[in-house]
Amino acid sequence: MSDLLQPGATIGILGGGQLGRMLSVAASRLGFKTHIFEPGANPPAGDVAHQVTTAPYEDETALAAFAASVDVITYEFENIPTTALDVLEQHRPIRPGREALRVSQDRLTEKAFLQDLGLQTAPFADIASQEDLDAALTRIGAPAILKTRRFGYDGKGQARIKTLDEAAPALASLAGAAAILEGFVDFSHEVSVIAARSPSGEVACFDPGENVHRDGILHTTTVPARLGQSQRMDAVLIAAKILNALDYVGVMGVELFVTAEGLVVNEIAPRVHNSGHWTQNGCAVDQFEQHIRAVVGWPLGDGQRHSDVVMENLIGADVERIPELARERDCALHLYGKAEAKPGRKMGHVNRIIRGK
Amino acid sequence: MSDLLQPGATIGILGGGQLGRMLSVAASRLGFKTHIFEPGANPPAGDVAHQVTTAPYEDETALAAFAASVDVITYEFENIPTTALDVLEQHRPIRPGREALRVSQDRLTEKAFLQDLGLQTAPFADIASQEDLDAALTRIGAPAILKTRRFGYDGKGQARIKTLDEAAPALASLAGAAAILEGFVDFSHEVSVIAARSPSGEVACFDPGENVHRDGILHTTTVPARLGQSQRMDAVLIAAKILNALDYVGVMGVELFVTAEGLVVNEIAPRVHNSGHWTQNGCAVDQFEQHIRAVVGWPLGDGQRHSDVVMENLIGADVERIPELARERDCALHLYGKAEAKPGRKMGHVNRIIRGK
Repeated sequence: MSDLLQPGATIGILGGGQLGRMLSVAASRLGFKTHIFEPGANPPAGDVAHQVTTAPYEDETALAAFAASVDVITYEFENIPTTALDVLEQHRPIRPGREALRVSQDRLTEKAFLQDLGLQTAPFADIASQEDLDAALTRIGAPAILKTRRFGYDGKGQARIKTLDEAAPALASLAGAAAILEGFVDFSHEVSVIAARSPSGEVACFDPGENVHRDGILHTTTVPARLGQSQRMDAVLIAAKILNALDYVGVMGVELFVTAEGLVVNEIAPRVHNSGHWTQNGCAVDQFEQHIRAVVGWPLGDGQRHSDVVMENLIGADVERIPELARERDCALHLYGKAEAKPGRKMGHVNRIIRGK
Repeated sequence: MSDLLQPGATIGILGGGQLGRMLSVAASRLGFKTHIFEPGANPPAGDVAHQVTTAPYEDETALAAFAASVDVITYEFENIPTTALDVLEQHRPIRPGREALRVSQDRLTEKAFLQDLGLQTAPFADIASQEDLDAALTRIGAPAILKTRRFGYDGKGQARIKTLDEAAPALASLAGAAAILEGFVDFSHEVSVIAARSPSGEVACFDPGENVHRDGILHTTTVPARLGQSQRMDAVLIAAKILNALDYVGVMGVELFVTAEGLVVNEIAPRVHNSGHWTQNGCAVDQFEQHIRAVVGWPLGDGQRHSDVVMENLIGADVERIPELARERDCALHLYGKAEAKPGRKMGHVNRIIRGK
């Protein structure tokens, strides 16, 4: 295939959650069809996709048929089994590429990659045993946070170690999973850059957003973030450095801590990112369309916003506020079509457009 | 059913063109599923719908199954056969209601309805014969325009009569279809109001847009329209009067001519309207979501814009401009996923966001 896909082509998306759903809508705006591959039945993305395959990532026949039916493959989450990628890439290009997945699937690999690029990260150590943990705590100090190297998100697979006597139970709570200890970073606030890179190496960043978390889950993103001009420039340069190093194609979320010693990279996500949802109502080209544009080889949007926005996640029982939110002026609702509102489950978000910019 | 539907409910949409497509996307944003009923294969709306039924409007079994699978029925075009509506309404409510369809399916009925409301229209006459036409031309004068009473759109089913000797060929060109003669209106420009009404009678209007046509097809809509404060108020009051008279539920497009003698109603469309596409990038709640909100009984958006916008339709070969449009700053692309770019065919539109408001 050529780098540049024409309207009418089909984009395969691995994962049928809300990110796949919003990617699918964005693809439709550019005249593309989408085919969702998702193990779970009735995925949110299925409501707005041309086609859905319901199969596990171990079903090589289903993977091959899926790949053969699409022109390019992308994904909404980074934890796709390597064996599935091996099957898929025999048929169609996967964008972003495997190096981005390899790096971001493992917190230790990711931290080492960032450090090798000369970027600041939290102090960290590979933890395979109680001895490793004791030594790391001596070096890094408490408080610190012990995380599984793989598969954690939204505060899952993590244990805080406030004092040294919490070390043993913390390690036990991870049940033998490979782990990383991360030191705490003294930061004033967290920002994120939603950056995109095209196959030709063009990079475009959205204006950085400022993130507030609650219970380990993103609560709000506010744009513009509190950043000085040089910090803003640093944030964009850091993101560009990461994308270029990975020869990246697509949108990436780069979370940064703002500290007295400069910006510290918290983590990267090789996909559209919750902290970029504000772009749906702040920019002509949102992060979802930006990702699709990169993946199909189209020109990127420039990332400049036309409006200031505050994004707020609707988690679990927040759905009970929908009637009141629907009445709120300049408040754009984005619901994900999930049937059950479990605690901690992302059910939707709202973008509040701030007038007067 | 209750007037108010909850996320997860299914909205049935008659017609699978670009309006159905964009309605479907808007429904998904509020957590609703959509089921498209469309006689043609592979409709544009099918790419972003939960379900598609491909069947003719004469297939009563398919209609009944479709109706049974949804919670409420709406439509993207007004020329739905009455027999199909008879079947559907036995199962589920149809919104907007049948009175709006009855009035707008027939240009003569529509003009008479508007006149009965005390609104200004072009002079008009019912034309069943050459004698009717001669008498009407004597009364109304030339130039005038002869239109079929039913099924015309985008300049189809119309013949201009510039001089009296063009009367006979004009009538012949309609091949015996019931017709209406409309006198020309001396107007400076055309505007349209995209108005919405909820089941409880709440009315909300978007800011009027100014329309420019080319070859009988909408070319651009610019918001704000050139209107004084009192004209703007008149436009909104006219729209509200029409919606209230029809006990209307949903979005309606009301086209108005701006004349020295005030606003003259050109035509009404009981559905989302091409001249309201600008709202996708100008408002927190666009016309498609506004229609869905009305149909499911949710609170309406207030219709105020956050940005000025110029919408431009992409017709036929305009699709060749997509690469250049994709590079344009603040230009939001909306393509309809149609395979073939025939002359006169609406392939997509762009919304140019004007900064500095």
